[in-house]
Amino acid sequence: MADLEFIGALTQRTGSKIVLLVLDGLGGLPRGVGGPTELEAASTPNMDKLAREGSLGLMRLVGQGISPGSGPGHLGLFGYDPRRYVIGRGVLESVGIGVEITERDVAARGNFCTVDEQGRITDRRAGRIPTEECARLVAMIEDISLPGIEVIVKPVRDYRFALILRGDGLSPRLNETDPQQVGAIPLTVEAQDGSQEALNTAELANQWIGKARERIKGQKPANMVLLRGWSREPGLPRFEDVFKLKAVALAVYPMYKGLASLVGMKLIHGLTNLEDQLLALRDNWNEHDFFFVHHKYTDSRGEDGDFDAKVKEIEKVDRIVPRILDLGPKVLAITGDHSTPSVMKSHTWHPTPVLLWAPGTTRRNWDVSEFGETECLKGALGQFDAADLMILVTAHAGKQIKFGA
Amino acid sequence: MADLEFIGALTQRTGSKIVLLVLDGLGGLPRGVGGPTELEAASTPNMDKLAREGSLGLMRLVGQGISPGSGPGHLGLFGYDPRRYVIGRGVLESVGIGVEITERDVAARGNFCTVDEQGRITDRRAGRIPTEECARLVAMIEDISLPGIEVIVKPVRDYRFALILRGDGLSPRLNETDPQQVGAIPLTVEAQDGSQEALNTAELANQWIGKARERIKGQKPANMVLLRGWSREPGLPRFEDVFKLKAVALAVYPMYKGLASLVGMKLIHGLTNLEDQLLALRDNWNEHDFFFVHHKYTDSRGEDGDFDAKVKEIEKVDRIVPRILDLGPKVLAITGDHSTPSVMKSHTWHPTPVLLWAPGTTRRNWDVSEFGETECLKGALGQFDAADLMILVTAHAGKQIKFGA
Repeated sequence: MADLEFIGALTQRTGSKIVLLVLDGLGGLPRGVGGPTELEAASTPNMDKLAREGSLGLMRLVGQGISPGSGPGHLGLFGYDPRRYVIGRGVLESVGIGVEITERDVAARGNFCTVDEQGRITDRRAGRIPTEECARLVAMIEDISLPGIEVIVKPVRDYRFALILRGDGLSPRLNETDPQQVGAIPLTVEAQDGSQEALNTAELANQWIGKARERIKGQKPANMVLLRGWSREPGLPRFEDVFKLKAVALAVYPMYKGLASLVGMKLIHGLTNLEDQLLALRDNWNEHDFFFVHHKYTDSRGEDGDFDAKVKEIEKVDRIVPRILDLGPKVLAITGDHSTPSVMKSHTWHPTPVLLWAPGTTRRNWDVSEFGETECLKGALGQFDAADLMILVTAHAGKQIKFGA
Repeated sequence: MADLEFIGALTQRTGSKIVLLVLDGLGGLPRGVGGPTELEAASTPNMDKLAREGSLGLMRLVGQGISPGSGPGHLGLFGYDPRRYVIGRGVLESVGIGVEITERDVAARGNFCTVDEQGRITDRRAGRIPTEECARLVAMIEDISLPGIEVIVKPVRDYRFALILRGDGLSPRLNETDPQQVGAIPLTVEAQDGSQEALNTAELANQWIGKARERIKGQKPANMVLLRGWSREPGLPRFEDVFKLKAVALAVYPMYKGLASLVGMKLIHGLTNLEDQLLALRDNWNEHDFFFVHHKYTDSRGEDGDFDAKVKEIEKVDRIVPRILDLGPKVLAITGDHSTPSVMKSHTWHPTPVLLWAPGTTRRNWDVSEFGETECLKGALGQFDAADLMILVTAHAGKQIKFGA
């Protein structure tokens, strides 16, 4: 895996356009020995045609045997070695809802939870309250003030919110308050190192929790908060500096917008489905040259353990492929950020199938009939680390110059 | 290849059981162009069935084009990058015969050899004397004392013995005394660096050699000693700490028990054949969750250059596979620690075939009919570094948690 400085020096700006179409959790497994995976079971005439014309392969998002979270998975897709570049959940949630994270910020992911009269947790997610209820609770705590710093609280989705402490001399070296089990009392925030910054920030965080508890203690079902994933802006090299691409992210879910914004992609807000995404793709076509299109529900149905529903989500995405091609991309890459086999109901380590379509610059596969995990074993791209995908994609788009004379 | 700390943080203890069945030197070559390898020529109905149900691949034990010794080969299998973790032969031989190596020890591998009246070597292995003769000679030299340190001498096998110097201020930075050619005089031990420790240890080693020569000078055919592989305890991360596995080694040969003990596996002594190993597997099943089962003779027959005999050894192992499955492992991995093609009569660099069987969690291969080098080219696992095998194995056994949110 090459480092970004090396790649950046070889990459040039051109007029060619690249679409990265990500089906979250695309990779799967068969329901029984010898059967098809979700992708193989799906009827995907458009992707199958591209598979025959383009190059296939299999990608390890983080490494052999490692099951990637969404953060590491997408960093890999964007060309950033996920073992080297690590992003905390607090920052992710915050940027995902459009909060611009500064260098003076420390961010946490918050959960609304339910505690009993003794303060013991009875539900770590407060019955997974809807987003509207989350917003109502946030409105009750958003004006809590702390001495010397600014406090930002925003609803995210369902029971989740983001807390950002903004000021000088803060540190994210703090422990989580979620004890990870029902029946336990929420933990106090403590400094993970002996620094004055961490001690001060822990003190402020505990003050905030105390005030928040007072304000929502009579509410139902959520009457308490848990804080996790303390983190700060990771300072990633900018995608545009490395790959010389004006990139735009067309994603519905906050998490994926957040990831895209951390590498400097432009975000389009207010998209709610594939149709919105297609329209935004068309609207932004002329002004950009890299388009990250993200579809969440393949992963969601995999996590549900619903094989047939995941198949349907894949088929839904297949149907929009011709409309992407109509815009005339030089490269269309179709892949996932990890595998979510419905038989396992979770993110897994299995390599993710990848389809790289770029007329005139792709190698032929060996006797491939469709886009699927097994056919990808015969792909021209072989098995490789995802952090190499962007190099391959930009090369196929004519953006990589020769290395050495 | 991931570092062990990274892997250890993602690995959790579960009840699932893993069997690693190692056919030493498994990989082979055809006798003529287009012919089958030893594994392909062997009738292995049990492994062939598992190959169709599980995932195949090819492993580089150390790296492309590197022919691994038994030590690096096994370290790779156990998940330790063999280029990073190096174990001396003296330590290997010692732990393999049950000598517990301490931090104060320096160990060497000894050979009994034959010298003529001028002290020139006529046979570096004294006609490969049997183990009983080795033990008789060791009895003649085991009570040689040296000033200020303890000396341990133990017969190993055939012409080989182990010498351990135990005391403070010793160093293994010493040269070998085997000149590697017949007709030459054994070398004097010299310090490889200028440290006082190495100079002192060289002086002690030369004293010991002088006394040993005096004691056995009239014996036939072995009348002299050669010392190689000076080394000390390597301080490897413990297998149980990294992979959260209670591991037991079921091996016949000292070398492999030694390797297993260096990573902290429990050893079962007194096993002499596959039947013993199977019984020990059953006896230790409930108390452990990782079982390293080692079969030496595939390598031995390969080294002999006896293609047909190597085929028979592979078939012997195939016949015990159902009895392993009867115990109900979650994962059965079948592979080798390197290739030993009988046409080459030596360890080689050729990638070693690997079969990973784990119901419900393996990806499908592409149209595989049997377990063999050529079919492994169509395997779902692709070609990978052996130090990733343990990550894959623990992932398939449900022991790897997600990396990142």
